Amino acid sequence: MGKHKVAIVGYGNIGRFAVDAVQAAPDMELVGVVRRASSLDNPMPPELANIPVVGDIKELNQVDVALLCTPSRSVQENAVKLLAQGINTVDSFDIHQDIVDLRNSLDKEAKKGNAVAIISAGWDPGTNSMLRCLMEFMAPKGITYTNFGPGMSMGHSVAVKALDGVRDALSITIPKGEGVHKRMVYIQVEAGADFADIKEKLLADPYFSKDETHVFEVEDVKQLVDMGHGVTIERKGVSGNTHNQLLKYEMRINNPALTSQIMVASARATFKQEPGAYTLIEVPIINYLYGETDKLIRKFV
Amino acid sequence: MGKHKVAIVGYGNIGRFAVDAVQAAPDMELVGVVRRASSLDNPMPPELANIPVVGDIKELNQVDVALLCTPSRSVQENAVKLLAQGINTVDSFDIHQDIVDLRNSLDKEAKKGNAVAIISAGWDPGTNSMLRCLMEFMAPKGITYTNFGPGMSMGHSVAVKALDGVRDALSITIPKGEGVHKRMVYIQVEAGADFADIKEKLLADPYFSKDETHVFEVEDVKQLVDMGHGVTIERKGVSGNTHNQLLKYEMRINNPALTSQIMVASARATFKQEPGAYTLIEVPIINYLYGETDKLIRKFV
Repeated sequence: MGKHKVAIVGYGNIGRFAVDAVQAAPDMELVGVVRRASSLDNPMPPELANIPVVGDIKELNQVDVALLCTPSRSVQENAVKLLAQGINTVDSFDIHQDIVDLRNSLDKEAKKGNAVAIISAGWDPGTNSMLRCLMEFMAPKGITYTNFGPGMSMGHSVAVKALDGVRDALSITIPKGEGVHKRMVYIQVEAGADFADIKEKLLADPYFSKDETHVFEVEDVKQLVDMGHGVTIERKGVSGNTHNQLLKYEMRINNPALTSQIMVASARATFKQEPGAYTLIEVPIINYLYGETDKLIRKFV
Repeated sequence: MGKHKVAIVGYGNIGRFAVDAVQAAPDMELVGVVRRASSLDNPMPPELANIPVVGDIKELNQVDVALLCTPSRSVQENAVKLLAQGINTVDSFDIHQDIVDLRNSLDKEAKKGNAVAIISAGWDPGTNSMLRCLMEFMAPKGITYTNFGPGMSMGHSVAVKALDGVRDALSITIPKGEGVHKRMVYIQVEAGADFADIKEKLLADPYFSKDETHVFEVEDVKQLVDMGHGVTIERKGVSGNTHNQLLKYEMRINNPALTSQIMVASARATFKQEPGAYTLIEVPIINYLYGETDKLIRKFV
């Protein structure tokens, strides 16, 4: 069987790491990156020197699956177009409350295009969702806590940057246990802007007002950025009638590297599913792995 | 939809806990327990007073799925018979090197009987297998260590009991890290048997000769038995080209309670699979859970 022909659509942090993940996969071939035209503001990254870079996916010869490394808000529009062309899609859509709608809408489009979409293929939503389900069926009564961090929250950082007078910002999530989090916010102000004023607005913002939040003024946010992240998922529950079953998952990872690797595993899985759209919990785990069924069972089961 | 009609076949430790797990499941009905005829040596357990107990599953009216709570060696024979009658089966077959053969053999029988078998549905093989696969696709290069215990090893305890002069025995597995284990063995000798002699034979047994093993003589093994067990699965690996991705799973659980709960979740999943035989890594995680797809995605993804 030939290799799956993969295109990367969007070239931010996740897109960059996706190049590595596709190139490291024995069953994948990177056929190109779809990205805004190069310009003075948006120069061609040197690591793409030997990779076809285009403005529209139609400029690439054949694409079997596209990794949508664009912001969550544009996933739906991009996926619909590609599925109609019979191209499988994988995204890491992370707006939890909209996942069911995205799935059900893309499911129709995928079936029309005879293609497969795997959505929300990151670590949360994504592999953390799989772990929460696993823990739930192992001990169906009880409480699961997902504790994020320490690590940079993309969503919260963007919310700070949106405030007037903020030149750059970083919001770090610190787990306090039992699913409660603390926010550490580092702000680089615009010339002439008042830090105290920004801080007051920030603490009133619904993104932050419910959590313990500490705000600091710094000279250069870029010096603080570390893409390491982590999570601890804990469940204490009941199997049958037996209490005190203790389950725990913990990881410390580079965030975009893990997200893009999960997307690549999901891209592989698209070729083993019937046409339609799926979240990660709807796909057999073996389908994410490279190799023959019997060998994989021998190795992992 | 009516409840799934479940029979428990075999009534050792796992069978006992399976009664609880089936009764706690909102979508299951326990229709009976299949067990050797009661006798002075094998009295009827009081907790089965209100449950039909039979010697052959054919004495029960309708069975949709059977939980095979018998020793691993008799799983194949029992499953073949039941699958031929169109009854789904779930087992916790734990002889790792024979799993592929069991799967491929039951796959044919299940398809003939238009039924579904889910095999090796415990925690190792079972949910640990799912976790090892999950970690593998998150960081495809690297090493995974499965560290068992502290907890009682059924297999090793049975191996000690098989030695001449041993009246009862318990082998506890202690993790030393990186998949290396220590064995603590407690032996109650037969009247007139020589402990030193038994100890020597034990240390030469291939079940123990490769691991650090400590052997103790005790007066009453039953006083030491605790069904708590645990595991720590650790992987340090590479996502794409990014090293030092640290993944870890840890649990402390009642062993037969967890095993039987996983069997009940797998029984549920049998009704969502096409005819055939499956290991746990071949079934979508959502299929183990009770509830509607959209609600489950909203809750866990």
